[in-house]
Amino acid sequence: MTKQFEGIIAYPVTPFTANGAIDTAMLKQLIDRMIDSGVHAIAPLGSTGESAYLTDDEWELATETSIAAVAHRVPTVVGISELTTASSIRRARFAERAGVDAVMVLPVSYWKLNDAEVLDHYAAIADAVSVPIMLYNNPATSGVDMSPELIARICREVSNVTMVKESTGDLQRMHRLLQLTDGTVPFYNGSNPLAFAALNAGAAGWCTAAPNLNAELPLALYAAIRRGDTELARATFERVLPLLQFIVKVGLPTSVKAGLRMQQIDAGEPRLPLQPLGAQGSEQLRAVLAALQN
Amino acid sequence: MTKQFEGIIAYPVTPFTANGAIDTAMLKQLIDRMIDSGVHAIAPLGSTGESAYLTDDEWELATETSIAAVAHRVPTVVGISELTTASSIRRARFAERAGVDAVMVLPVSYWKLNDAEVLDHYAAIADAVSVPIMLYNNPATSGVDMSPELIARICREVSNVTMVKESTGDLQRMHRLLQLTDGTVPFYNGSNPLAFAALNAGAAGWCTAAPNLNAELPLALYAAIRRGDTELARATFERVLPLLQFIVKVGLPTSVKAGLRMQQIDAGEPRLPLQPLGAQGSEQLRAVLAALQN
Amino acid sequence: MTKQFEGIIAYPVTPFTANGAIDTAMLKQLIDRMIDSGVHAIAPLGSTGESAYLTDDEWELATETSIAAVAHRVPTVVGISELTTASSIRRARFAERAGVDAVMVLPVSYWKLNDAEVLDHYAAIADAVSVPIMLYNNPATSGVDMSPELIARICREVSNVTMVKESTGDLQRMHRLLQLTDGTVPFYNGSNPLAFAALNAGAAGWCTAAPNLNAELPLALYAAIRRGDTELARATFERVLPLLQFIVKVGLPTSVKAGLRMQQIDAGEPRLPLQPLGAQGSEQLRAVLAALQN
Amino acid sequence: MTKQFEGIIAYPVTPFTANGAIDTAMLKQLIDRMIDSGVHAIAPLGSTGESAYLTDDEWELATETSIAAVAHRVPTVVGISELTTASSIRRARFAERAGVDAVMVLPVSYWKLNDAEVLDHYAAIADAVSVPIMLYNNPATSGVDMSPELIARICREVSNVTMVKESTGDLQRMHRLLQLTDGTVPFYNGSNPLAFAALNAGAAGWCTAAPNLNAELPLALYAAIRRGDTELARATFERVLPLLQFIVKVGLPTSVKAGLRMQQIDAGEPRLPLQPLGAQGSEQLRAVLAALQN
Repeated sequence: MTKQFEGIIAYPVTPFTANGAIDTAMLKQLIDRMIDSGVHAIAPLGSTGESAYLTDDEWELATETSIAAVAHRVPTVVGISELTTASSIRRARFAERAGVDAVMVLPVSYWKLNDAEVLDHYAAIADAVSVPIMLYNNPATSGVDMSPELIARICREVSNVTMVKESTGDLQRMHRLLQLTDGTVPFYNGSNPLAFAALNAGAAGWCTAAPNLNAELPLALYAAIRRGDTELARATFERVLPLLQFIVKVGLPTSVKAGLRMQQIDAGEPRLPLQPLGAQGSEQLRAVLAALQN
Repeated sequence: MTKQFEGIIAYPVTPFTANGAIDTAMLKQLIDRMIDSGVHAIAPLGSTGESAYLTDDEWELATETSIAAVAHRVPTVVGISELTTASSIRRARFAERAGVDAVMVLPVSYWKLNDAEVLDHYAAIADAVSVPIMLYNNPATSGVDMSPELIARICREVSNVTMVKESTGDLQRMHRLLQLTDGTVPFYNGSNPLAFAALNAGAAGWCTAAPNLNAELPLALYAAIRRGDTELARATFERVLPLLQFIVKVGLPTSVKAGLRMQQIDAGEPRLPLQPLGAQGSEQLRAVLAALQN
Repeated sequence: MTKQFEGIIAYPVTPFTANGAIDTAMLKQLIDRMIDSGVHAIAPLGSTGESAYLTDDEWELATETSIAAVAHRVPTVVGISELTTASSIRRARFAERAGVDAVMVLPVSYWKLNDAEVLDHYAAIADAVSVPIMLYNNPATSGVDMSPELIARICREVSNVTMVKESTGDLQRMHRLLQLTDGTVPFYNGSNPLAFAALNAGAAGWCTAAPNLNAELPLALYAAIRRGDTELARATFERVLPLLQFIVKVGLPTSVKAGLRMQQIDAGEPRLPLQPLGAQGSEQLRAVLAALQN
Repeated sequence: MTKQFEGIIAYPVTPFTANGAIDTAMLKQLIDRMIDSGVHAIAPLGSTGESAYLTDDEWELATETSIAAVAHRVPTVVGISELTTASSIRRARFAERAGVDAVMVLPVSYWKLNDAEVLDHYAAIADAVSVPIMLYNNPATSGVDMSPELIARICREVSNVTMVKESTGDLQRMHRLLQLTDGTVPFYNGSNPLAFAALNAGAAGWCTAAPNLNAELPLALYAAIRRGDTELARATFERVLPLLQFIVKVGLPTSVKAGLRMQQIDAGEPRLPLQPLGAQGSEQLRAVLAALQN
């Protein structure tokens, strides 16, 4: 039986050593730290994990390392953000063999894709594996914008697309998706600054990089929502919101890796052309993180 | 002392007779109906009320008629959507003399306005009257998009701008405004499909045309939120959402006037170039309204 | 017989006196100056002329003043930018009675217009007058974006819509319009920085506020194009381009009125909420104008 | 000495065999055909060549095959569209060793890049090779939009970035670039429907996939421009425009491969998720190609 994804789904960065290789020891440490703090699932190789920037070998190493690190303590969903269907399939198969509980698939475009092309992309990947697929909509990074109508159709027609992660930042789409699927398809919030609203709207979980730096507040927010304590949930959200706003504005790998260093954890730098956070941004981030301790 | 605006702020359409004049008897009837059903405030001459399409004489007549109809049973806020500062001031003064509790001011652009121009526009109107001003941000209709930062600055620098109505459909802006004003400036949701989320986020009220056609569900939603019953609020919201989506997609005057006719209320047609709802749209609206009765 | 519109169609600002009234003497003077310098047509009350900001009385006064000032030396086309069909008709009829050669009609939106609403708006105005109508597409100011397909359809179905002014800044639309109309509908460039390209593409004329400040270079550009001297045309365009870029970036009434003052002509200020050009902008404009003298 | 790029720079598709491998014989044939028809340069592995969709091995094979096929009859510029700086450098070095005359570099984003990141990306690649670099701006496919100001700065600060290809479809940017570089940096039009305007504006060449299907008309257009025969250039452009509009609307690999098949040339299909042109599109393309023969 498939493990359920619910609650705080934490996205580790992919740490690099000084020479740019994947730092598997640090990746394991980051995952341990997040699981120890109580997150409900681990999602390596998402946008945060610079999935799209890795070679096949690197991606495979990070996948195996992550799955071993998680060791079934919580469910694992691995991110795939490839331009071609063939490469997406190859990575999905690898992940399945390696033992993931699900794969999260983002269609990435160079040439724009029409609806049939997106649908068939998912269908081809789904045919190639038997693990569940989380459809991931994030037009700002991928260049592909799937309407709620298209997403609902894919969920209907491709049997192992069973979850949806929405990162457009448009809350109305989540309500629309609920309408179109009669609430039968669990959806996950991928837009950090909408976490409170999305969980209220019925999101099954919140996909977030925040637990790299602070897992306590996202977990407290989620717990308050589940208890129906909207006031506490809102207050908790307002506390963590400056962190969410900052990491989204700057970009997740850049800001999270800078923040980790402020917490004495060296996960290296994001991969070029992405550059480390500059002096001004670092000062802001330091203030944001300090405010969370009060 | 100023009346408080809170809860469901209802926006009547401006009814026209067959020859295109304002139907004051029907305007009074619409307002009575909404107050009888329990709405918390009346906002004539908003976007719904085709404020921008009226001559000065018509606008003044509608203002006076509305204020007389409300008769202080609930607070009244009158909408001003003028291109020039001079015309905005003239209408604001008229409204104040006529006895409104507040004016809602939307800056409208032909030539784009910079921040100083928007700020000084509000300052000039505020200098000319002593009633409170509700700042209204609705770039889709007005062509002016005020950032949360600019809105917070206007609230800080112009003393009788004391309320903010946000209609961008971007929930993050409401959270940002709360941050920037430390929650001291009440804000109102003007984006119907975000009503549930905005009220959860702390909105003091919901500005909506829905009560022209159905006041019961918005009132029930608001009551559930106030009681902290998030589940009931969400269920109520999901019931009324198809109506909200429809009237926003089609346009408020067009859809609401068509819906009123389906309820045997003749409020006339929207003013040209706006056209009455066509056959296909009418069929959809009929189905949406029928579903609310179940 | 209708006068032909061709070449440099000059858009005077509407000058205001210190107390905000229309300065008819100055309007006459500006028009004389432009005709004396050789422009091929005069277009009062365009975007440059703050048409949308004037009361009916003011608009009528400016129309009558302009027509008298032109005195049939060149053709006159008067701009109408009204929200309602009724008001557009009223102004078109006034202009016809006052003796214009054509009216330029911009549909302005508050509520979005569908294609049928735009088409019927033009048809109703066209029914009400017998002067030719120049359809004007300028979504950035009006909120209405007419596709080449819709424009071609209006030209086909509404007999006295005989000219098209395109101001989207998208050159492909001009080529598309030519295709769709088989080159039978003269089109006019309304995007100043595209003047050279649009004239090369076959535009019958260039609608521009530049002659308020410099008529010589636009006229020289047009003459070079007509003689087939592309090299000279391009060189001339490149000389005047910084002026065109500046006035478009800042906004036409604001920048042109500031420039006129630098040329010792007091046309007053733009109407509030539009503000006079600030110190930094004035310095830039002074440099731009000085460079034209070299 | 560097070969000059000027005129019609033709972009071959990358042909695939039935099993999805690169069809090197057909690639050679396509290049021969275009050179025989008179094009001035060959640009393999551009957007048309599905560069971003190829594995390193495939990309290297296509590069070597193309360079051998061209055999220095005309200059060759090879396209690089990679997400990471490291991968861009690796491909640039390979191309240099293989004997290209220039490389065309498109920065591709997943996470947004700031100006420093884009500049340093170009600087790092430029440091690694000594062939000239054509900067390529195509935000619609790459997600990176470089302003004319940034482009001018890169040309200034990175010595072997010596050419610019602009594909935004915004003609004003080309004029702006000319201003900012005093006309010292040759620029190339990458937006097919702007070819006539861009060449008039001073573009050194036109980068186009059209010669896969028809080289005669682009060459005639270019020749007419160079002779100063604007009328003939415009007429020629108008003849070929429907083809340009079609291939841009549908996407270059999809439409060109379908068109080649109509010309009895089997270059295979675009790589999945891109799908072959459907029945309706094929019918349109057939009509467009037939009209070119008249």
